[in-house]
Amino acid sequence: MIVSWVTMDEPGSSEVVYWKEDESSVKKYAHGKHKSYKFHDYTSGYIHHCTIRKLEHDTKYYYEVGIGHTVRRFVFTTPPPVGPDVPYTFGMIGDLGQTFDSNITLTHYEKNPRKPQALLFAGDLSYADNYPNHDQHRWDTWGRFVERSVAYQPWIWCAGNHELDFVPEIGETQPFKPYLHRFHVPFKASGSKYTPQYQWLKTELTKVNRTETPWLIVMLHSPWYNSYDYHYMEGETMRVMFESWLVDAKVDLVIAGHVHGYERSERVSNVAYNIVNKQCSPVKNQSAPVYLTIGDGGNVEGLANKMTEPQPEYSAFREASFGHAILDIKNRTHAHYSWHRNQDGYPMEADTMWFYNRYWHPVDESRSN
Amino acid sequence: MIVSWVTMDEPGSSEVVYWKEDESSVKKYAHGKHKSYKFHDYTSGYIHHCTIRKLEHDTKYYYEVGIGHTVRRFVFTTPPPVGPDVPYTFGMIGDLGQTFDSNITLTHYEKNPRKPQALLFAGDLSYADNYPNHDQHRWDTWGRFVERSVAYQPWIWCAGNHELDFVPEIGETQPFKPYLHRFHVPFKASGSKYTPQYQWLKTELTKVNRTETPWLIVMLHSPWYNSYDYHYMEGETMRVMFESWLVDAKVDLVIAGHVHGYERSERVSNVAYNIVNKQCSPVKNQSAPVYLTIGDGGNVEGLANKMTEPQPEYSAFREASFGHAILDIKNRTHAHYSWHRNQDGYPMEADTMWFYNRYWHPVDESRSN
Repeated sequence: MIVSWVTMDEPGSSEVVYWKEDESSVKKYAHGKHKSYKFHDYTSGYIHHCTIRKLEHDTKYYYEVGIGHTVRRFVFTTPPPVGPDVPYTFGMIGDLGQTFDSNITLTHYEKNPRKPQALLFAGDLSYADNYPNHDQHRWDTWGRFVERSVAYQPWIWCAGNHELDFVPEIGETQPFKPYLHRFHVPFKASGSKYTPQYQWLKTELTKVNRTETPWLIVMLHSPWYNSYDYHYMEGETMRVMFESWLVDAKVDLVIAGHVHGYERSERVSNVAYNIVNKQCSPVKNQSAPVYLTIGDGGNVEGLANKMTEPQPEYSAFREASFGHAILDIKNRTHAHYSWHRNQDGYPMEADTMWFYNRYWHPVDESRSN
Repeated sequence: MIVSWVTMDEPGSSEVVYWKEDESSVKKYAHGKHKSYKFHDYTSGYIHHCTIRKLEHDTKYYYEVGIGHTVRRFVFTTPPPVGPDVPYTFGMIGDLGQTFDSNITLTHYEKNPRKPQALLFAGDLSYADNYPNHDQHRWDTWGRFVERSVAYQPWIWCAGNHELDFVPEIGETQPFKPYLHRFHVPFKASGSKYTPQYQWLKTELTKVNRTETPWLIVMLHSPWYNSYDYHYMEGETMRVMFESWLVDAKVDLVIAGHVHGYERSERVSNVAYNIVNKQCSPVKNQSAPVYLTIGDGGNVEGLANKMTEPQPEYSAFREASFGHAILDIKNRTHAHYSWHRNQDGYPMEADTMWFYNRYWHPVDESRSN
C-alpha cells in the first residue's frame, strides 16, 4: 500500500506508523521519502510517499502520519487473498475534477450501498491545467478534496490528458511532472519499469493466471468504443494496435474516461480488418471485453451532450449524466455491474448488467440482462 | 548547415573554418560544441556539432575541421534560394546499415547520373543494436562509412526503431541516447522543439507556402501503405490519426523505410472510415500522396522477400531488391522519380514515374507514365 501526503512548511517525517485493529497488535514503522517540484512560479510542498509492505489480507489497519505538529490517524482494510472465488467490489470514476458535480459524484460513491472497496480511476484528476499557468494549487486542493476517500481505501489511476501539464510557453516541458511527483503507482511490482508500453502490455496480458485473478480488467483514458461526438475515434490509434491482444486474452472489461458522459458497449470486436478485406465493422464477439466510458466524474468543462446518431449497434447504453460505476465481483463467474447517476438517490442503479467472466463462463450475458 | 564530427583522444576545437570557393573570399569561423556519452562499457569520443549560418545560396564552400594533429578539408554547395521553379535533386535511402549491400547502395547513390544534391534518410542508420550490448563502435564505423557522402552534401534523417537503443538489461534506459548525441537535426528552425508531434504536425502542414516550397514531402520510418508481410499494418496507428491531414495538405510524397524492400503506391487514401460506414478500403485519390517504401538500403537483417498476395490495388510496384531512389525536381509542376537497384548499372532506372505536383498540377500522373 502506498501512502502519500504533503507537508507544507517543513518536510517532517516520511514515516508511516501502522498497526492491526487487534488491540494486542504491535506498532510497525515504514520509511518513506519526500520530494518536491517547481512549476512556473509555484513550489510544491514536501510530497511524501511511503510503501507499507507485507500487510496481512482481510485485515483492518490503523495508520498515522505526522503533518506539522499534529498526527493524523486513518484506517483501511486490506483486500482478501487472491483466489478463484473471492468477492470484491470496485468503484470506477473518471474525469473527476473538483467541481460541484465532482463533489456529488464522490459523495454518491462513498455512500453507495454496495460498499466499494477500491477505486479504479480512469484518468483526468484535478483539471489544474484548465487554470492560468496550470495553477498547481489546484493539485493541492484536489488532494484535499479526495482525501476523505483515498485515505481509507486504495485508489489506482491511469494518466489522462489533463495530467500532461506540458506548457512550453512558461518553460514547463517535462510531461506529467506534477502527476508523477504526486501520484505513485506500483509500477515496480507490475514489472513495467523501463519497459515500453507495447512490450509490457503484450507480455502482461499473457501472464495473467485466471485462477488467481479470474477477472481481467484493463483501464485506459481515451475510449476505443465511443459513440459521442466528443473525442470520436481518438482512441483508434491504440485500438488498431492493441484490440486483438485484449480479445485474445479474454479481457472482461475495459474502463475508459476522457468523454464526459457514460457509455457501455456490447461485447464487440473489430479485429478482422486487414486493409484489403473490407471487414472493418464492429461485430458481436463473446471473447471481447465490454467497453465502459465512465468519464462522467464531474470535470470542469461540462457534459458531453452531443452524440453520433443513430446510436451505433456497438453501443448498448449511453447517457450524458454525471455519475460513477460499481463492479461487484461475486465469484469467478459472476459480477454485478451498476452505473449510478448523480441526479438519483444513492442506491439507484441507472444501468445494470450481470457480467459473466470471459474465462470461466464465456456465455452471452445479453440474453439474461 | 550542421557539421558534425568526432575526435577521439582529446576534444580539440569545435570550430569550423569555412570560405567561398571564390579566391578573394575571407575565411569565416563558426563555433560549435562537443559532448560525449557513455553506453554500457563504451565511452564515446568527443562528438562535435557546429552550425554554420547565413550561407549564401547556390555557392560552393570549403570547410575545415581539426581532428587530432590534422586538419580535414571538405567542400559542399549550398542549395538555391527557395522559389516556385527551383530545380533540385533529392536522394532517398532508408535502412542503410553497413554491410556489403549498404556499400553498394551508397556507391550507386554517389554515382547516380542525376547527381542528387541532398539525401532524405528514412531511418535505421547503423544497426549497432544488432550487435552484443548494442556495440557502440558500430555507430563510429557507420559514421566513417557514410562520411564520403555526408561530408559533402546535406543528409537529413528521421529516427527509425534501430535508433532506439533501449536496453534495460544493461542499464541503458534513455531512449535514442546514441542517436541524439550523434545526429543533430535543425529542430529549432522547424519550431518542433518542446512541441508534441501531434500539435506540431497539425500546425506545420498548414504553414507550408507552396509558392516558396512547391513540393511537400513527408518522411517517416514505418510505412502506412505496405504490402509486404514484414511489418504489415504496423503503421496503422499513425495512419488512422494523421492520414487525412496529409491528404488535406496535398502532400506530394511520403517516404518510409522499415520494410527491407522497395514499394511505390498508387495515389490512394483511406480516410472515409468512421467505424460504422464500412468505408475502409484504400481508394484512388488525386489529393493523396504517393507512398514510397525505400527501406532497401542494405541493413544487416536481409531482404524482405515475403509479400502479401495478391498484390493489393494500392500497390503500384514492389520488389525486394536493395537500392536507392531519386526525386529530380524540375519546376513547380514536374519531378522525375526513379528507383535504382543495386544489381543494375549506375544509370539504370528500375522503376520510374513523373510526379505532378499536387498543389500546382494535381493531374492523374498514372495516365502519362
